[in-house]
Amino acid sequence: MRAQTMETELAATPAFAPVIENAAARGRLVLVCEHASNHIPERWNRLGLTDEQIAAHIAWDPGALAVAQGLSRRLDAVLIHAPVSRLVYDLNRAPDMKGAMPARSEIHDIPGNAALPPEERLARTEAVYLPWTAALHGLIAGRIALGLQPVVVTIHSFTPVYFGQRRQVEFGVIHDSDPRLALALHEAARQLTGLRAELNAPYSAADDVTHTLRLQATPYGLPNAMLEIRNDLIASDAACEAMAETLAPVLNMGLVEIQKQAKAS
Amino acid sequence: MRAQTMETELAATPAFAPVIENAAARGRLVLVCEHASNHIPERWNRLGLTDEQIAAHIAWDPGALAVAQGLSRRLDAVLIHAPVSRLVYDLNRAPDMKGAMPARSEIHDIPGNAALPPEERLARTEAVYLPWTAALHGLIAGRIALGLQPVVVTIHSFTPVYFGQRRQVEFGVIHDSDPRLALALHEAARQLTGLRAELNAPYSAADDVTHTLRLQATPYGLPNAMLEIRNDLIASDAACEAMAETLAPVLNMGLVEIQKQAKAS
Repeated sequence: MRAQTMETELAATPAFAPVIENAAARGRLVLVCEHASNHIPERWNRLGLTDEQIAAHIAWDPGALAVAQGLSRRLDAVLIHAPVSRLVYDLNRAPDMKGAMPARSEIHDIPGNAALPPEERLARTEAVYLPWTAALHGLIAGRIALGLQPVVVTIHSFTPVYFGQRRQVEFGVIHDSDPRLALALHEAARQLTGLRAELNAPYSAADDVTHTLRLQATPYGLPNAMLEIRNDLIASDAACEAMAETLAPVLNMGLVEIQKQAKAS
Repeated sequence: MRAQTMETELAATPAFAPVIENAAARGRLVLVCEHASNHIPERWNRLGLTDEQIAAHIAWDPGALAVAQGLSRRLDAVLIHAPVSRLVYDLNRAPDMKGAMPARSEIHDIPGNAALPPEERLARTEAVYLPWTAALHGLIAGRIALGLQPVVVTIHSFTPVYFGQRRQVEFGVIHDSDPRLALALHEAARQLTGLRAELNAPYSAADDVTHTLRLQATPYGLPNAMLEIRNDLIASDAACEAMAETLAPVLNMGLVEIQKQAKAS
């Protein structure tokens, strides 16, 4: 009976499977890109937005996927990324958060998300959020079972101007309840790069941006962090590749540091 | 490519779907019974155990499912329960915990779990744990999306004699990081029943028994608790039914109390 219900739902709203790259990787890192795509499937009719709005940062994190792919290749890391825009469902938000299916993002109204009925919230949760959470959880739990001691890092980008304000920070490292990895990465970025690196900027856990970390890493006690790269620094393929080259040693140094701490404790 | 890998794994070890009852229920409670079954699928060859051992508490929580079903009917609550024995995979444990596939339980060696290779730990994780976690997460996230404010309660039973020691507690209420619901249920049990009720007995979170609560409730800030009933009090169908009749008002009073607290805060 359950399978039947599922099929009915899937017929109404097809499920959107996340994309997994480098699935056979055996490094500790599990790289996560919740805002990789600005794709809005046809059934949502562009959510009433213009081409320009769909290309802008409100629909996705421009550059984040290419940097994550560059890191995945350099660090023998599995990578999972979103198949649809954060405006359909923001995979870094729980289903009852306003930001999960936002009616407004920064200075833009999202017409297709205005006054969503509970049934539509459920349909998007089942079509986008649940396939994503199950796939990411599968990657993590499978690696735990194999004794690979996974470490969860999410990769984001942010806009240089937000509500008219220019942001000075270039590279943000954000933590939730367990700061170990974030502190190590922030320190590594200061030592190894010329980036203006800050902790818990341009957002922090208080802004409800650490849902993935809370859901997927904290219950298992896994080291975790969220990375934020200012998107004007990764505006071309070449710039993304260069940023991956800059950040790969930062991640490596962070992993070595938490390994050292774990041995000492 | 991923679908292919999945099929290969499923061919090797079929997935065991959890059982969901009362799926259309709209009450706040999501009842969870991780140790409902002592079924050991054929491929695991009884894990080398005798009939007597498979009937005993080491393989499951006798009575817990019948009490949970009685509560589900009385409280308009959805119920999810395990399809296989905790000795194949203990669904209240993470894949790297010893207790997930225990080589020893209380005073019994489990021959089929001795020195499991990583590949077998992965196979059981994918066959038993992942279908379970995805289904329970789906129940919870769907209810969050609908605004039903779910509350997670796990139902267990414990043996009256453990390592030769007699246990006096009859009804245990265990909490993890958020004690709200557990405190309310403990108080309600003292007021409404003649049971010897204790908080964080016969185990506590320090014994690694709150994995389900940590994984499924805490990330969403949902009220949650684990209930433990001494199994000599629920040794027959009639006794299970009577216990459900006793505990239903306790759960109702607990829900009312946390609702009151939520309004006051």
